[in-house]
Amino acid sequence: MSKKYLMTPGPTPVPEDIRLEMAKPIIHHRTKEYQAIFKEATEGLKKIFKTSNDVFTFTSSGTGAMEASVVNVLSAGDKIIVVRGGKFGERFGDIAKAYGVEVIAIDVEWGTGPKPEVIKETLKKNPDVKAVYTTLCETSTATVFDIKSIGEIVKATDALFVVDTISGLGADDFENDKWGVDIAVCGSQKGLMIPPGLAFCSVSEKAWKAVETSKLPKFYFNFKKYKKAWLDMDTPFTSAITLVIGLKKAVEKINAQGIDSVIAEHNSQARAFREACKAIGLTIFSKSPSSGVTGVNMPNGMNADDLIKLLKTEFGVTFAPGQEHLKGKIFRCAHMGGIDREHTIEAIKALEMALSKSGHKFTIGAGVVAAEKIL
Amino acid sequence: MSKKYLMTPGPTPVPEDIRLEMAKPIIHHRTKEYQAIFKEATEGLKKIFKTSNDVFTFTSSGTGAMEASVVNVLSAGDKIIVVRGGKFGERFGDIAKAYGVEVIAIDVEWGTGPKPEVIKETLKKNPDVKAVYTTLCETSTATVFDIKSIGEIVKATDALFVVDTISGLGADDFENDKWGVDIAVCGSQKGLMIPPGLAFCSVSEKAWKAVETSKLPKFYFNFKKYKKAWLDMDTPFTSAITLVIGLKKAVEKINAQGIDSVIAEHNSQARAFREACKAIGLTIFSKSPSSGVTGVNMPNGMNADDLIKLLKTEFGVTFAPGQEHLKGKIFRCAHMGGIDREHTIEAIKALEMALSKSGHKFTIGAGVVAAEKIL
Repeated sequence: MSKKYLMTPGPTPVPEDIRLEMAKPIIHHRTKEYQAIFKEATEGLKKIFKTSNDVFTFTSSGTGAMEASVVNVLSAGDKIIVVRGGKFGERFGDIAKAYGVEVIAIDVEWGTGPKPEVIKETLKKNPDVKAVYTTLCETSTATVFDIKSIGEIVKATDALFVVDTISGLGADDFENDKWGVDIAVCGSQKGLMIPPGLAFCSVSEKAWKAVETSKLPKFYFNFKKYKKAWLDMDTPFTSAITLVIGLKKAVEKINAQGIDSVIAEHNSQARAFREACKAIGLTIFSKSPSSGVTGVNMPNGMNADDLIKLLKTEFGVTFAPGQEHLKGKIFRCAHMGGIDREHTIEAIKALEMALSKSGHKFTIGAGVVAAEKIL
Repeated sequence: MSKKYLMTPGPTPVPEDIRLEMAKPIIHHRTKEYQAIFKEATEGLKKIFKTSNDVFTFTSSGTGAMEASVVNVLSAGDKIIVVRGGKFGERFGDIAKAYGVEVIAIDVEWGTGPKPEVIKETLKKNPDVKAVYTTLCETSTATVFDIKSIGEIVKATDALFVVDTISGLGADDFENDKWGVDIAVCGSQKGLMIPPGLAFCSVSEKAWKAVETSKLPKFYFNFKKYKKAWLDMDTPFTSAITLVIGLKKAVEKINAQGIDSVIAEHNSQARAFREACKAIGLTIFSKSPSSGVTGVNMPNGMNADDLIKLLKTEFGVTFAPGQEHLKGKIFRCAHMGGIDREHTIEAIKALEMALSKSGHKFTIGAGVVAAEKIL
């Protein structure tokens, strides 16, 4: 098997036409040519976020934009609610604490999402809460949260609603404006199918009001600097030119197909993969599985990391391991960004062969059959 | 003229083999394959910095690493010296002020460097100064500063010595360890000839001691997180994989030739360009010209931006404009990174033709002759 299949939830495979576009001779960023590219990339991104709010592009990993969503709207001593149901929810809390912000944690069992009524009660009990931070798809548990319902609750309060969509955007349903999201954070290397290195924040009017009173120190991630530079269709600090050129091409491709159709496609791959797993005797980790990534429990006694190694070395398929206490217990397979139907079928075929080789008993081919019925 | 020549001080042209290396199918960053690449890139970078200190890679523009050099070693209320002799020296001061750090500015005329004895006196008068921030090559004025002499002065005090080498490294002489630099800041898109998107900090033992007492809030740029991740040959947040792959290739090329030889080559291009300018009746803006970029004064009555436009549209050569109050008064031509002898000669030829077309009187060809004598 000479082809290699990267099935990790970030980076996802970068389509060849995007890679070649980025490989052209570099251009300067303070030119009309680049301004037009940056403008198109940003406008295209807004369609994917489903927002008419400002959307800013940072040169950073997704965590940089998470930090931006904290330092631009809060002051030391402020109180926020953070939903922690996996590694990335916890990160919001860690960032806030590093800046002297008080965190009310709502801990949910890994693999489940927060109950909207718990958020409602917590907001009621703490009317001074400045913002609620949560996640669209918690990558570490492959779980999608009910952002729409939480949004309705937060919208009715003075608190801001901040959502990490890093691994959900482009795979799970997301409606920035309809769902009342004040800041949506995203990264480039997942649903947007370009290499890592860019991160984004959408910023609502309500969020801009909080920016005015925020006292946390900031410079590189200061929203106001990005807003001012956007008037010249530029970033305040040197743009990651090649990545923005890739972004422009990627959002063009996504919007040409239509974001809803793209989401439906990844959703069908995710369903196909889940049904395939069930057909070969595996169970799904998450109680609210994402369309962007699936976490799969290991059959009794098998170690997920051994299986991942076998899949990579013998079958050329790269899955992601479980994180923190899930290490060795689950493997994760992504369905977003540059991952298509062919990848999904190949991954299932390889998974069947690797499991069979590892001694797991099931009807060979049952996974592929189950998946093909859906795809 | 079908070929295009990008002669800007960042981005500089990215060599084709580096572009193609980055265009290969993307790999995952938490793999042995990537760890080896990241390790080689970092070790190669240390040779270019001439340091045995830690060198960390951030996904950000150079400004992000400038911010890192402030937030990791200082606390609010600390006092620092900032040399301001151009746009980028001023930025250090702006970052520090945003974090509540007191700035003692040493303002020097644009186009000149700071006098080491002024820094010595200022340190003497202010023994509580925590750090001195300055620039190797002030890109906005194309001026190289005497970092070696300043380093000797700062080394003898308790203050840290922080140097922005963003547009100097790989073109102007720089000796991180010998010159007593505690933190050197750099970016990817200049002497290192890859696209923008990565930034670097070298961190000395003396700087690490300051890290231990620093109270400024930080998360994304926290040195300690990068140090910890380096034990696994990784970055704490998703690496900008393709750019790091490009970096590995670039530092390999630079070190294969030898950093001193690379610097000598760019230095000879810079001298050739300066002599060419003089031969056609132009004068050099800086009193201490850098080998990475040259700023050139316009002849009486001519506007630099008009010349830049003509050069770009009719001759395919892109120069950079003057910044702030130098706008329209100077143009800047770079000599670093992917810019080679051929580019330099082509730029001079185009400059002669454009000047002639604009009515400037001189002996056509005199610039090329002067340059070829040096090259």
